[in-house]
Amino acid sequence: MPSGALSFDSESSSEHSLIAQYERVRAQTMALIEDLSAEDMLLQSMPDASPTKWHLAHTTWFFETFLLQPYLSGYKPFDEAYQYLFNSYYETVGERHPRPQRGLLSRPPLEEVLAYREYVDKAMAQLLPTANTDIEAGVTIGLHHEMQHQELLVTDIKHALSLNPYALAVDDSTSLSAASDHKPAPREFVHFEGGLCFIGTDAQSEFAYDCEQPRHQVFVADFSLSDRLVTNAEWLEFIEDGGYERPKLWLSDGWATAQQEGWQAPLYWHRRNDHWYTLTHRRREPLDPNAPVCHISYYEADAFARWCGCRLPTEFEWEVAARTVALKGNLLESQHLLPQPAPSGHKGLKQMYGDAWEWTQSPFIPYPGFTTPEGALAEYNGKFMANQWVLRGGSCATAHQQMRATYRNFFYAHQRWQFTSLRLAK
Amino acid sequence: MPSGALSFDSESSSEHSLIAQYERVRAQTMALIEDLSAEDMLLQSMPDASPTKWHLAHTTWFFETFLLQPYLSGYKPFDEAYQYLFNSYYETVGERHPRPQRGLLSRPPLEEVLAYREYVDKAMAQLLPTANTDIEAGVTIGLHHEMQHQELLVTDIKHALSLNPYALAVDDSTSLSAASDHKPAPREFVHFEGGLCFIGTDAQSEFAYDCEQPRHQVFVADFSLSDRLVTNAEWLEFIEDGGYERPKLWLSDGWATAQQEGWQAPLYWHRRNDHWYTLTHRRREPLDPNAPVCHISYYEADAFARWCGCRLPTEFEWEVAARTVALKGNLLESQHLLPQPAPSGHKGLKQMYGDAWEWTQSPFIPYPGFTTPEGALAEYNGKFMANQWVLRGGSCATAHQQMRATYRNFFYAHQRWQFTSLRLAK
Amino acid sequence: MPSGALSFDSESSSEHSLIAQYERVRAQTMALIEDLSAEDMLLQSMPDASPTKWHLAHTTWFFETFLLQPYLSGYKPFDEAYQYLFNSYYETVGERHPRPQRGLLSRPPLEEVLAYREYVDKAMAQLLPTANTDIEAGVTIGLHHEMQHQELLVTDIKHALSLNPYALAVDDSTSLSAASDHKPAPREFVHFEGGLCFIGTDAQSEFAYDCEQPRHQVFVADFSLSDRLVTNAEWLEFIEDGGYERPKLWLSDGWATAQQEGWQAPLYWHRRNDHWYTLTHRRREPLDPNAPVCHISYYEADAFARWCGCRLPTEFEWEVAARTVALKGNLLESQHLLPQPAPSGHKGLKQMYGDAWEWTQSPFIPYPGFTTPEGALAEYNGKFMANQWVLRGGSCATAHQQMRATYRNFFYAHQRWQFTSLRLAK
Amino acid sequence: MPSGALSFDSESSSEHSLIAQYERVRAQTMALIEDLSAEDMLLQSMPDASPTKWHLAHTTWFFETFLLQPYLSGYKPFDEAYQYLFNSYYETVGERHPRPQRGLLSRPPLEEVLAYREYVDKAMAQLLPTANTDIEAGVTIGLHHEMQHQELLVTDIKHALSLNPYALAVDDSTSLSAASDHKPAPREFVHFEGGLCFIGTDAQSEFAYDCEQPRHQVFVADFSLSDRLVTNAEWLEFIEDGGYERPKLWLSDGWATAQQEGWQAPLYWHRRNDHWYTLTHRRREPLDPNAPVCHISYYEADAFARWCGCRLPTEFEWEVAARTVALKGNLLESQHLLPQPAPSGHKGLKQMYGDAWEWTQSPFIPYPGFTTPEGALAEYNGKFMANQWVLRGGSCATAHQQMRATYRNFFYAHQRWQFTSLRLAK
Repeated sequence: MPSGALSFDSESSSEHSLIAQYERVRAQTMALIEDLSAEDMLLQSMPDASPTKWHLAHTTWFFETFLLQPYLSGYKPFDEAYQYLFNSYYETVGERHPRPQRGLLSRPPLEEVLAYREYVDKAMAQLLPTANTDIEAGVTIGLHHEMQHQELLVTDIKHALSLNPYALAVDDSTSLSAASDHKPAPREFVHFEGGLCFIGTDAQSEFAYDCEQPRHQVFVADFSLSDRLVTNAEWLEFIEDGGYERPKLWLSDGWATAQQEGWQAPLYWHRRNDHWYTLTHRRREPLDPNAPVCHISYYEADAFARWCGCRLPTEFEWEVAARTVALKGNLLESQHLLPQPAPSGHKGLKQMYGDAWEWTQSPFIPYPGFTTPEGALAEYNGKFMANQWVLRGGSCATAHQQMRATYRNFFYAHQRWQFTSLRLAK
Repeated sequence: MPSGALSFDSESSSEHSLIAQYERVRAQTMALIEDLSAEDMLLQSMPDASPTKWHLAHTTWFFETFLLQPYLSGYKPFDEAYQYLFNSYYETVGERHPRPQRGLLSRPPLEEVLAYREYVDKAMAQLLPTANTDIEAGVTIGLHHEMQHQELLVTDIKHALSLNPYALAVDDSTSLSAASDHKPAPREFVHFEGGLCFIGTDAQSEFAYDCEQPRHQVFVADFSLSDRLVTNAEWLEFIEDGGYERPKLWLSDGWATAQQEGWQAPLYWHRRNDHWYTLTHRRREPLDPNAPVCHISYYEADAFARWCGCRLPTEFEWEVAARTVALKGNLLESQHLLPQPAPSGHKGLKQMYGDAWEWTQSPFIPYPGFTTPEGALAEYNGKFMANQWVLRGGSCATAHQQMRATYRNFFYAHQRWQFTSLRLAK
Repeated sequence: MPSGALSFDSESSSEHSLIAQYERVRAQTMALIEDLSAEDMLLQSMPDASPTKWHLAHTTWFFETFLLQPYLSGYKPFDEAYQYLFNSYYETVGERHPRPQRGLLSRPPLEEVLAYREYVDKAMAQLLPTANTDIEAGVTIGLHHEMQHQELLVTDIKHALSLNPYALAVDDSTSLSAASDHKPAPREFVHFEGGLCFIGTDAQSEFAYDCEQPRHQVFVADFSLSDRLVTNAEWLEFIEDGGYERPKLWLSDGWATAQQEGWQAPLYWHRRNDHWYTLTHRRREPLDPNAPVCHISYYEADAFARWCGCRLPTEFEWEVAARTVALKGNLLESQHLLPQPAPSGHKGLKQMYGDAWEWTQSPFIPYPGFTTPEGALAEYNGKFMANQWVLRGGSCATAHQQMRATYRNFFYAHQRWQFTSLRLAK
Repeated sequence: MPSGALSFDSESSSEHSLIAQYERVRAQTMALIEDLSAEDMLLQSMPDASPTKWHLAHTTWFFETFLLQPYLSGYKPFDEAYQYLFNSYYETVGERHPRPQRGLLSRPPLEEVLAYREYVDKAMAQLLPTANTDIEAGVTIGLHHEMQHQELLVTDIKHALSLNPYALAVDDSTSLSAASDHKPAPREFVHFEGGLCFIGTDAQSEFAYDCEQPRHQVFVADFSLSDRLVTNAEWLEFIEDGGYERPKLWLSDGWATAQQEGWQAPLYWHRRNDHWYTLTHRRREPLDPNAPVCHISYYEADAFARWCGCRLPTEFEWEVAARTVALKGNLLESQHLLPQPAPSGHKGLKQMYGDAWEWTQSPFIPYPGFTTPEGALAEYNGKFMANQWVLRGGSCATAHQQMRATYRNFFYAHQRWQFTSLRLAK
């Protein structure tokens, strides 16, 4: 198990609590599949996404490969072929099944994958009481890894079902007037003093990924952040003002992508009889104007910000600001699986955590002094540090335990199937 | 229900026998899915192929759309949405679900599709006893249509499972020597006198598709046909003689396709430890040198024929020759689902029916005087009469009742996932 | 030099006349480039087309490779590298420059290619007086080959210049009323008796390509052909009747192509201020309603025929009919380089030769008994006998000497940049 | 003409010197085409590159559009159509000819484009003596714009001729031993103290692009830079050590690109008889082991740095270091058009300017406080601030006047046809 950049001080976590964490995270995954059939769980709608069943198996493969095989003496793999089938991208670990063909894995069937989970969970129950520091570090990574896949599981199946005209009921019962009860207050900007700031973490007291390290100084000028996310109602104004038709608002790559893909609105929006609908959790419903806009690309976020004379925040600005608020929000545990309107009635930053990831104008590149850990997990984040953008703050599908002010998520500028939104900066 | 070009004289078939046929064909479809799971039946491995579940539903949709809705008074469709989901290509009938996304239809689930089949079967049981000529003609088309889909069901799921490294067991128990017991006699050519021949049918006494009509005269010169299909052993000689490396043996389009696709052998062949293996029904087994070569493109068939100084037959030559032999062979009912070595011990044409479709050098174009039937079934064959090639004789996945000397199957020259083989001509 | 299938009896052509033919054909090529600059002659607008300069060099390479190198003792190639640069597709002759990159050959410059032509012409002047039968046969092929390239030269540069908004003047001076002077008489059908017909040629007395051989019997039923080509005015009716919007009129492949390419009219047509314009020779002019429709794909021709209750002729019907009329028409020598309205005032078949190639419903496949000649010229036509369609009759860019009743031209169903039109059949 | 972010204080430049600059830059462009034919100048080998003729016209169009039309009273455009043909990407200015089809513009011919240059130059000679501040600012931009296109002209035609097997002579006369005379000293690292540094410029006293502004503070940690560029000899070690075969050395996107493109060495390298050759200016020569490696992608530069335990510098580190050395080097004026071996014999940073652009690990994003200028030139740099990487230091094709410590060039990570190299950092 790698130590170093990925390690953290786990002395305070008792053996008992690691077991409890393991059980809680693994159970949370299972809770997410409750309303899905074996057929649903086989769907792969694009190379970027994976079948639910694959997520179930891959997260289990992670514990088998990086914990049970090296550390549990006498451990016998559940099935040798799984090594090939359920490796995601670890070149070090060996060959793997081609990503775009994960949806063709009707076999092993779901029940075997569920048996695999149980088999590994039982073996982990043997290993965990004996865990030394290396094992604890590895288990913690494995759990954070599984929490990341919980979010992908939610967004991947949402995308797959969205392409099935039969799958999702249309619910017209939510009237637009009802939604208006939660109308957020007008946007206000919160000012922050700049200066030399510490960014990132050295991760002695809590878990953090390699890419959040090391803690280092960045000079940040004075800045202001909007107190809440942009809403659907505000996005409609952008659309109505020709936001999708004016190349001058867009980055060059963004305009080309928008033209090629025919973007006229965020992903999952569609118009019917002069009303906009969107996809909520397993339903098609009238668009809630008060909810944060969601499922937008970096290009759209950037164009919107330019349209209203603002810009996106840098990831440093976001982190500086986030440290001033408590880590709470509409995260996975609140079980909405949908961004919610900003609460009104108090001043200051809202929605910093949860609801939807916030695109920043910062490309995902290494922090000064970044090093990859030894071993297979060297491939965890470092090799993706090109052409992607940092998103901050977590979403309604992010587990609370996974989130922290220094967390750096990253996606390509054109990707829209995650819960992505924006907060304006000046 | 259309009559005319698609009609046939069914006076001899009693009400009872049409019901019996209906039940037999529908049951035969269900027999083909016995070893498949709901997950297997969702697989779509390429746009050319469809999920098993889709075949089950589409063949049922055909009876609902063309028989029950027009003719059974008071019939209530099982589910209005199925009209959109399970239409294949009938523009006349309305919009339809995009073909490459059939594999995303996890919903409706398999059990609902099976319930759909039962629902329609029950309604058909009401309709059939009252059937007039139009209904009988329509039911007969529907049954032939379903038999066509039985064959596609078999070849489509074979292709899908072939891409799953986990799905198919390797069976080394069949030794090459064992296979040699059935070694066919050396190829002999059977000579036929040419002349003005009648080709096609006017279909008064048995069912035939529009594209087999009308019966017309074709001048055929003297010709000879090989008495059996080309074997795997003979194909190995072609490979070893550089068959896949010599552009002069190939059509220009064929060579370009072979290079682009990296063809080095027929589909499903792979080499391991100096032995060739292929895919049989749900297993990977050592190649049987005596069995007919199978899963080859038109381009490969054409190159092989040129390599050995022969050519492919025309569809007219094949039809003239086929009329001299009895309609029997290794068809679906023999349940091999695999081409078998030619029987030895008697002279004359063997394997004319069953085992594998034989590529002819005849493009699929209309016969002189061809007309499309009225109504939706006008789209049945006519609109595909460009860029495809005629195959004759049926395969191990073709129902006996579906086969006849005038039957014209057709595929694109590059397609290989059907049971396709070749017979040499001179 | 190959003999056999490509040979013909040239005893009647004196040494003198072969020289005269050589000089005439080579000069005709040069006449076609008179209004083109060195820059124009470098253009390659698509992989299907070649630069003018490449045509000039390739036709010369043909004489150097197949005549001068084997037969003129002491002949020294103009430049060894040309062997690679100007080979079109003769695998036997060796490697070649990739076709889509012909437009990158700024070097050798035009003047060197012109010097190459002169150099080879001088050497040919040495060889021709000594020509034996093999040489005569080879020269004749070379001249026919060059005439084929004359036509490609004309259509390729037309396509390339069509994509340059600056290259082609718009000429509004031709008024639509002026055009109406030549309004052709209404379409009439000419009836032909069918029967066993001889098709193709054995080419003893005049040149013919391998693919026109051997002469063989085909049974042709009674048929009727329209007395002239379809006009632009008639095509406008098809457009106005939704011809490009009704899938039922189209072959399945054709509809897919038309949708993908966005076809709304023949190639080079565009609409401006409610008037249709098209591309004539180096000009954009108002569409002449009386001229034959031109630059259409097979798919469009087929859809038009279906729209008006007719069909396309087979190549056999066309050949039978063509033998009843004299070989004359608007061919290259008339220097229009544009199809002309059918002459009125006499009954019977018009425009059988020249004006525009007529799509037939016959795929380009070998005649019974077809054999390829020995040597490199084996690659001449045989390897293209798949997926293409036969066109008959020549066009305004076809040299008179090249044309005959048995000539089979062939293109893919989607190609439109040749002078292609249609004649209706019943 | 825009002012603001693009303006600079030009009081010190007399009217005379602006004229002199104009003449010098325009003449320098013409000097670059001396050995090119009209045919060469039409070549476009990929959408990223443009024909030489297009560069000649576009740079002229810039003066016509942004200077002559707004400021020279009575100015009559040379040809109205050029507005469309030679606009590059200014959406504000109107529609434009599609970029990938620039190579189809055989017309207007070269001589007309040269006449266009003269016509505009004459008009500029009228305008320049009357230039006010706005005009001076515009002319200066126009000249810098033209210098940028000089570099593209050189690299674009190099790429186009590289694809012509006939165009470039192979020169074996340079022996490898001869090259060794210039062997650079082993790489040494120069240490720099970090701290809060000023980056960028406010451009009051010299020209700078919008993207170099505003001057702002960045915290830079201590760092070391290699004293010279990586050499071809060092790159060969990387190749021989499996640099192109070990995925762990590569970014994920880089590995995918390298596999797809089949990269085994830098662009233009090829191996013949166990020796490596590369493309110098219009020749193919044995690789000079002492010259800097050139024509590499960001991905390759990054992999090389990782391979030798280093990293690429940030653009801030580079700028801090560059301010310590004089602005001189192997730039366009030295007329090598080829990177040269580092001079030996003195300590400290070498090759900071000229020879080849140095990839930095900094994505091209806006500086804090960046604003786009008003008007059409708002599109100059801002809209490209996504997915590209900053390169610093200029190359052998960069005009001296164009270069400065704050200059930010940018390309996509996969692009290799510019003169690109790397300097290691720690």
